[in-house]
Amino acid sequence: MRSKGFEGMACSIAEVMGALGDRWGILIMRDLLLGLTRYDDLRRSTGITNATLSDRLKGLEQAGLIERRRYQERPERHEYVPTGRGGDMALLMQAMVQIGDKWRREETLEAPLRFVDAESGNGLKLTMVEEDQTGCAHAPGIRIIPGPGADDIMRWRVALGGDERAQRSERITG
Amino acid sequence: MRSKGFEGMACSIAEVMGALGDRWGILIMRDLLLGLTRYDDLRRSTGITNATLSDRLKGLEQAGLIERRRYQERPERHEYVPTGRGGDMALLMQAMVQIGDKWRREETLEAPLRFVDAESGNGLKLTMVEEDQTGCAHAPGIRIIPGPGADDIMRWRVALGGDERAQRSERITG
Repeated sequence: MRSKGFEGMACSIAEVMGALGDRWGILIMRDLLLGLTRYDDLRRSTGITNATLSDRLKGLEQAGLIERRRYQERPERHEYVPTGRGGDMALLMQAMVQIGDKWRREETLEAPLRFVDAESGNGLKLTMVEEDQTGCAHAPGIRIIPGPGADDIMRWRVALGGDERAQRSERITG
Repeated sequence: MRSKGFEGMACSIAEVMGALGDRWGILIMRDLLLGLTRYDDLRRSTGITNATLSDRLKGLEQAGLIERRRYQERPERHEYVPTGRGGDMALLMQAMVQIGDKWRREETLEAPLRFVDAESGNGLKLTMVEEDQTGCAHAPGIRIIPGPGADDIMRWRVALGGDERAQRSERITG
């Protein structure tokens, strides 16, 4: 689904939703940001039909959020990785996790996913701070771990994407 | 559009997107959080067709994000206001604005909407901080103002919702 109807709106919210396309696009971005790269893994993780998954991957690529790379020649195989623009979506995922986790707590359900400081292991949360305020920003190095409310498929996702996430963070910091 | 297919996923991201329904749901929540309350204003602001707008308002109500209140008897008229759960979505809007604004800057376009400290007027941004870190959280009192990249309809939205936003923040802090 392309961003038709959202183009030309002077609104950053509309622009971001236009790029994501729909909620399937958001679930696919979640998995790519968790470090999943292969079509079959995305399919297993999201349960999206082939037609919808192919269509949304094309849409995310056209929107400049992901890149399709060949990793094998015979037979030809591709992997999908977030671009810098796609990486920006991590903030959106963190916001959604924070809201959804609050709702789950209200029903005494625990968090499926946790964002922690890579060194101290302390939990992290999004907060509004003044733009020029220094000393508050968390040091780079966010680790994603399964939370106490994770089910088998969430643990599988987080484990499967772990190496890829580690490599990316090395590329960024190294 | 209901959250069919998203139910039962142990994922907070899926849960939040399930409640919002789709990108139209997000645009409607944006406007309700900006303080718009009336059907005709939502229609003008979003440009959504009557059928879609009615359907999404019902969906947001069923998801517990908004409340429909009668404000006039003859003829009967209703207004729509976010519940506490709907108010949680402000974090999602801030994240989207922050991402979209970054993309706009890369194209040397300015921000349509700004979040500033109600007292100092300083710009605010979302940052990951340690959960138990104190002293960094911004004091309550966020003001929403049109940014330098706002067009006429964004200025109209922000102005129209201003009184309602002020009343809500009084209800919260008073």
